[in-house]
Amino acid sequence: MLETTIAAIRPPDESAMAAARELQGRLTKPAGSLGALEELSVRLAGLAGHCPPPLPEPAAVAIFAGDHGVHAQGVTPWPREVTAQMIGNFLAGGAVVNAFARQAGASVTVVDVGVATPLPATGTPAGAPLADAPAGAPLADAPGGASAADGAPAVPLTRSPAESLPARDAPRLVAANVRPGTRDLAVTAALTRDEARAAVETGIRVADELIDAGAGILLTGDMGIGNTTPAAALIAAFTGIDPAETTGRGTGVDDPTYARKVDVVRAALRRHDPDPADPLGVLAAVGGLEHAALAGLILGAAARRTPVLLDGVIAVAAALAAAALAPHAVAAMVAGHRSAEPGATVALRRLGLEPLIDLGLRLGEGTGALLALPVVTGAVRVLHEVATFDSAGVAEK
Amino acid sequence: MLETTIAAIRPPDESAMAAARELQGRLTKPAGSLGALEELSVRLAGLAGHCPPPLPEPAAVAIFAGDHGVHAQGVTPWPREVTAQMIGNFLAGGAVVNAFARQAGASVTVVDVGVATPLPATGTPAGAPLADAPAGAPLADAPGGASAADGAPAVPLTRSPAESLPARDAPRLVAANVRPGTRDLAVTAALTRDEARAAVETGIRVADELIDAGAGILLTGDMGIGNTTPAAALIAAFTGIDPAETTGRGTGVDDPTYARKVDVVRAALRRHDPDPADPLGVLAAVGGLEHAALAGLILGAAARRTPVLLDGVIAVAAALAAAALAPHAVAAMVAGHRSAEPGATVALRRLGLEPLIDLGLRLGEGTGALLALPVVTGAVRVLHEVATFDSAGVAEK
Repeated sequence: MLETTIAAIRPPDESAMAAARELQGRLTKPAGSLGALEELSVRLAGLAGHCPPPLPEPAAVAIFAGDHGVHAQGVTPWPREVTAQMIGNFLAGGAVVNAFARQAGASVTVVDVGVATPLPATGTPAGAPLADAPAGAPLADAPGGASAADGAPAVPLTRSPAESLPARDAPRLVAANVRPGTRDLAVTAALTRDEARAAVETGIRVADELIDAGAGILLTGDMGIGNTTPAAALIAAFTGIDPAETTGRGTGVDDPTYARKVDVVRAALRRHDPDPADPLGVLAAVGGLEHAALAGLILGAAARRTPVLLDGVIAVAAALAAAALAPHAVAAMVAGHRSAEPGATVALRRLGLEPLIDLGLRLGEGTGALLALPVVTGAVRVLHEVATFDSAGVAEK
Repeated sequence: MLETTIAAIRPPDESAMAAARELQGRLTKPAGSLGALEELSVRLAGLAGHCPPPLPEPAAVAIFAGDHGVHAQGVTPWPREVTAQMIGNFLAGGAVVNAFARQAGASVTVVDVGVATPLPATGTPAGAPLADAPAGAPLADAPGGASAADGAPAVPLTRSPAESLPARDAPRLVAANVRPGTRDLAVTAALTRDEARAAVETGIRVADELIDAGAGILLTGDMGIGNTTPAAALIAAFTGIDPAETTGRGTGVDDPTYARKVDVVRAALRRHDPDPADPLGVLAAVGGLEHAALAGLILGAAARRTPVLLDGVIAVAAALAAAALAPHAVAAMVAGHRSAEPGATVALRRLGLEPLIDLGLRLGEGTGALLALPVVTGAVRVLHEVATFDSAGVAEK
């Protein structure tokens, strides 16, 4: 499945890009006056293979949640249980990502790809899953989702497309737990190669199902206490940049914790010596289940020529893995914002992407991507709705 | 009227700001993780005098249009008639500001505060006006607006609040022409002091009527071929920064035109030697009618404790005038974006405002403010909708 997806990712369509550039020059505005939005519209035309490209609607946020064995190294002051507790918050609609998604009219899908502690809605351990399901099997809605609080059994996603995107007020939980958290990357490989692949393929499947259900753009979200540590390791592994420059303070750690975090990342890279030419191997050695699944989501979107709006440092770490697996996947990526985490800037530079928003956010969940969504939609809308000098009877200079 | 408005502008409410800061610390997210949005929410609480402040809805864009005598100096390659032609485009819904306003659900009001050539919808010269109307008189809808194409006579704005904000698909034209374009600031004062005051008071009246009609936030828009030249002069006059640093390429002028533009601004400042302590005098000497009206719009919003989202270089030049007239007006200002015009950055620095978006836009019309609107709404929405650690049962670090 991974190989089929990678093979389906094609370069952008140059003629659609040329058509978009030409159209931008005829619209009633000075040439170039929409700045970065003009080139964004050209990129999205190239991705779609059409000018104008379709409006990126509706939008679907996919939040992949996982836990991290490296939590044992004291890289974060937050208890590991917060990952599962925040899933409860997402499903109840109480998190920032919910507020922003309601505002943007985006649906929210939470995917348990590797939570270690019981999910609060049911008290049952996170798990069950898809990891062993045959390739192409539908994703199962998890018991314990807000809409299944009565403990109804997991149901396959056989709803019609119109019903399949969760309503914006009813976030959905998908059970796809590959394993209950990664192993401690300071001690051993975080994942086996098969586990990393299973997580990537979960992400591909989520992309496919959201796009089948009508999504015009996917937004990356993540939840995982401790997940900026593997993100820093992934970014260092894929770029060769020193961990001191790829590691940040995450949710706001103090100086001793920060120093420990950098040491943990550096030691892990020394121990595992991951080969950036073997992206699955890098994900297995120092990644997280949500990072791997996000890489899959990006690949899945790219294979369907659907834009994927990247959130923060977890997303761009995953994007490096996706780009290493399929370089043309970068054409589907739009950088939503510049996270305050320094590794995000390192990764964006390597990907050649300029973020749309830069407001010092470091929350994750998909919040930065949601704030950027109207900019992406606006960039495309201009090609659909703005009059030309000719049609509007406006003189040119 | 100007003096009454200035007297009504009060400092922000410190206790509402403290309440917003305290609430931000209890919401289910790491402290500070929403970056600039957190301080923005605190500022808006201070402006409203309440925590949480009201959601900034609905949004109303006011586009002030005027022409410029300095056009005769060859500071722009665009014909002067484009100002009036673009008003036709706004009213027909074909401009970028219309596309962005539709997306954001914002209304669009176009105010002819000083167009020099006939407006296209009617063929009648822009004009008639309000300039001589008694203070407090209602603004007249102009004949020639999209909704008055049958030539219905101008009607006073006596509609009920619910009817008074133009629908997002039906931009409205308000006739408030103070004079048909400014005089050439390279030769004489652009405006008399009375004309400058009339334009400022027009802006105040537009703010009042939009807020009376229910607007929760005002967005600045502008249209005026040649208007970056007076903007550069205003910014230099209010900040004391050299015109070479406040003058930009506007819609994209070539090197000789740019050099001429800087010379024109420098010579005008030498000739008029405007006193920054006399803001009306500065507006009269080197301003534009739309700049003066925007200063009034900002003052009017501040007096009503309503946020005003600033667009580009024309708006921030006007904002310097408003701040010189009433320093506490800055509390009502939110900088929407960083225009590519260098003068915008000079002005924002002086105002102490950090823009929300920085994408190289240099279009005007209100487009940059509209792109930033969801960020402002999102910042406030967090205070209304996000669960606290306590209420959501999420552990703290």
